[in-house]
Amino acid sequence: MASFSSYIFLIILFIISVGASEIKSIYLPGTYQSSLLVKKHDEKTKIPFKTHYFPQILDHFTFLPKSSKVFYQKYLINDQYWHKEGGGPIFVYTGNEGNIDWFAVNTGFMVDIAPKFNALLVFIEHRFYGDSMPFGNNSYKSAKTLGYLNSQQALADYAVLIRSLKQNLSSDSSPVVVFGGSYGGMLAAWFRLKYPHIAIGAVASSAPILQFDKITPWSSFYDAVSQDFKDASLNCYKVIKGSWAELDALSTHDDGLIEVSKLFRTCKALHSVYSARDWLWEAFVYTAMVNYPTEANFMMPLPAYPVEEMCKIIDGLPKGASKLSKAFAAASLYYNYTQTEKCFNLEGGTDSHGLHGWDWQACTEMVMPMTCSNESMFPPSSFSHKEFSQDCKKQYGVKPRPHWITTEFGGYRIEQVLKRFGSNMIFSNGMQDPWSRGGVLKNISSSIVALVTQKGAHHVDFRSETKNDPDWLIMQRKQEVAIIEKWLEEYYNDLKQN
Amino acid sequence: MASFSSYIFLIILFIISVGASEIKSIYLPGTYQSSLLVKKHDEKTKIPFKTHYFPQILDHFTFLPKSSKVFYQKYLINDQYWHKEGGGPIFVYTGNEGNIDWFAVNTGFMVDIAPKFNALLVFIEHRFYGDSMPFGNNSYKSAKTLGYLNSQQALADYAVLIRSLKQNLSSDSSPVVVFGGSYGGMLAAWFRLKYPHIAIGAVASSAPILQFDKITPWSSFYDAVSQDFKDASLNCYKVIKGSWAELDALSTHDDGLIEVSKLFRTCKALHSVYSARDWLWEAFVYTAMVNYPTEANFMMPLPAYPVEEMCKIIDGLPKGASKLSKAFAAASLYYNYTQTEKCFNLEGGTDSHGLHGWDWQACTEMVMPMTCSNESMFPPSSFSHKEFSQDCKKQYGVKPRPHWITTEFGGYRIEQVLKRFGSNMIFSNGMQDPWSRGGVLKNISSSIVALVTQKGAHHVDFRSETKNDPDWLIMQRKQEVAIIEKWLEEYYNDLKQN
Repeated sequence: MASFSSYIFLIILFIISVGASEIKSIYLPGTYQSSLLVKKHDEKTKIPFKTHYFPQILDHFTFLPKSSKVFYQKYLINDQYWHKEGGGPIFVYTGNEGNIDWFAVNTGFMVDIAPKFNALLVFIEHRFYGDSMPFGNNSYKSAKTLGYLNSQQALADYAVLIRSLKQNLSSDSSPVVVFGGSYGGMLAAWFRLKYPHIAIGAVASSAPILQFDKITPWSSFYDAVSQDFKDASLNCYKVIKGSWAELDALSTHDDGLIEVSKLFRTCKALHSVYSARDWLWEAFVYTAMVNYPTEANFMMPLPAYPVEEMCKIIDGLPKGASKLSKAFAAASLYYNYTQTEKCFNLEGGTDSHGLHGWDWQACTEMVMPMTCSNESMFPPSSFSHKEFSQDCKKQYGVKPRPHWITTEFGGYRIEQVLKRFGSNMIFSNGMQDPWSRGGVLKNISSSIVALVTQKGAHHVDFRSETKNDPDWLIMQRKQEVAIIEKWLEEYYNDLKQN
Repeated sequence: MASFSSYIFLIILFIISVGASEIKSIYLPGTYQSSLLVKKHDEKTKIPFKTHYFPQILDHFTFLPKSSKVFYQKYLINDQYWHKEGGGPIFVYTGNEGNIDWFAVNTGFMVDIAPKFNALLVFIEHRFYGDSMPFGNNSYKSAKTLGYLNSQQALADYAVLIRSLKQNLSSDSSPVVVFGGSYGGMLAAWFRLKYPHIAIGAVASSAPILQFDKITPWSSFYDAVSQDFKDASLNCYKVIKGSWAELDALSTHDDGLIEVSKLFRTCKALHSVYSARDWLWEAFVYTAMVNYPTEANFMMPLPAYPVEEMCKIIDGLPKGASKLSKAFAAASLYYNYTQTEKCFNLEGGTDSHGLHGWDWQACTEMVMPMTCSNESMFPPSSFSHKEFSQDCKKQYGVKPRPHWITTEFGGYRIEQVLKRFGSNMIFSNGMQDPWSRGGVLKNISSSIVALVTQKGAHHVDFRSETKNDPDWLIMQRKQEVAIIEKWLEEYYNDLKQN
């Protein structure tokens, strides 16, 4: 079971690390790579931002001689809507694990609401991602350089950068609101908790801050993915659940690899049946995450409610067809909705950019144990801290600190703690998104609120508005705007009084 | 002016670093040492605690291979009053810059109230002080080791230790309240702000968390010292204010050193007139700090309201006596209240223990600019960040980060920020204490309160109760107890509801 649970973890890493232009497993090195993902990142998208670089300090929390080394941290600015004198706030996106441009493209919500608020928009790139490499091309060389990659340093980066930016813009009294989605949402929430003197509020979308230690049941993530498919069609769920055994059976055949290669229409003959499993797995997990109500292109171009579409494919195939071939057909929607792929590259890809930063974070601080229960549509699996730790030690030479995140940021009994501490936070979650299970799903106080939509998916509220947006999504965004307005109003009232 | 402002800073370092058994200036190396202080620390005081050592991690905020090195952090436990099953809380003292035993001895308040609360008492030593040396005897060798000495690492130490201790004691739901005085009080306040999931409240006594950057006027500290003396007697203030010029005049005489040595009854001939200035300066500043309403022995054995006693000495001397001789006579109260000293050691002392940790902290994060105004009883002086930075660079090879503390912990507009964020904090201050000017002196919200006493001095509320305590002090402690009771009651009510 060990290798399998590790494998599951690998998939999870993918999910969050979608921002990185390269994905590489620490457990199955080099075997897993979606060529389409790489292609996607070659696209140049125009964004309404100017790029800047901030001289950032390497280590905020020690004063060794080398701690004060400076690197250049990328950030994006859009000031076209900003009315500083009119009280326009500063909206800051706390960048997550990837090129900041990509998050700017996929957080249209902030651009959409900026004119209404007369807001300055700032997107800050997370250290060790995109162009913000403290040691240039050597940043990912070993634990001696990667050691500076973690969430606390990133939060301190944001604090230092925002303070300096406000000083340079002579906007000391402009209120700052932080926004973030996924890991970026975790950072936004934690930023408000740790730096309330810098951000007056945080909008944390799809932020699984409770996916640590034993706070959230370890099987909840895959149970949630499975529930999405079960809700679309019980048969669909059963077909996918049964497909893994068929794939396993093929792996013992002499010609198994050839058969799988043929079935999966691979461009080149496969080296491992596991590649097919990874490929399917990724498609189902990602599609559940981005089960958006409109056509979208976050991970891949996909139709509205793609889980339902996948299940329609499965349910529409002849009864006699194998479960595996049905699963393949469904997964193809994810990889080839645009019908442009003649064959699929399930293997290959090199770590040309060395951007596997989330692997490192997962092996040090971001330990999110995950298992598959018997009820999920994935093969059952367990998680062992000991084995995980050994694997990380082998890969990076350091051991995970599995209880550190909950020590540093809390999480246990969060309702009791934050009921009497903190304020001005929005936790938005869509229940289609399996990450929602590790999120804050209930109001904690009058100003720490949970906005939960049953049909929402991974930070759907942060996407640009479209003509086809359903009412519940329009409503959710309106609620967010109204809450932010209240924060700002309160802030300015307080300012006047002092 | 530069050397003088540096000199002032040196004195300030003393004030907080009183816990260290060695005091050594980074500006006047080896010239300043109070032998009485050292003697005091040789005393063995019996304290009702058991000593433990916790395997602590060296660097919480990076994951370099060497970050996970373990050192042994000392902590003290008293469990004689603890009724865990009866809901007894855990009272933790967040140790400051010195041997933890010394803080345990001087924080009798916690021992006094433990039976009433059925509380467990824990005193945790600050890294790089006392026995908690991450690199043994080499801990103070250079910035490569000292670099790990700072407040954020100390707070994380406390978080990790408390969490582990609670687990070992199977007391997961026991509420923790943190206490601290002076720098320890700053740590207690910051701990509540940064780790609200670990401590339900903080009692921060004489915690100058606003003594940074430009929040508090730089001259306020010495103005406050001067005010204490002026309030006792205008003549007294004037005599001291005039004494420095007389000392300066002597320093230009051929026989000046001999005269000063004679006047100051030194055991050995002085090498520098500055030693006499330091000696006087320390006596006046410390005495203002510990201007307690009862006889006490915190810094030195002293009578009740020692500032008044000093001024009585000055006012009682013949008109014809020199101001300097009067200042000397007053200062002698501080050094020789017990009348056991036949002569004084104004110079000498070696850095045998290498415990000048506060110097390091002041040269990196704890930059508290201080000046003397024309209205103070000290010679006017300025402060230059540039010169300070150069001095620190010269001494330690690293430069201060003068804006870091306010970036990490806030401070500007603290009332506006904490009015809507945070809860359960007591800031207690006595206005006799010059550090009070950098403290929180006004209620911020219904649960972040300031307890200010006009006649109180440096964390007087934390001292053991005595039969001679004045009513205002008894009342202040009662208020603290009542507030803590309310926190606990709320905590248990919340716990029941969840």
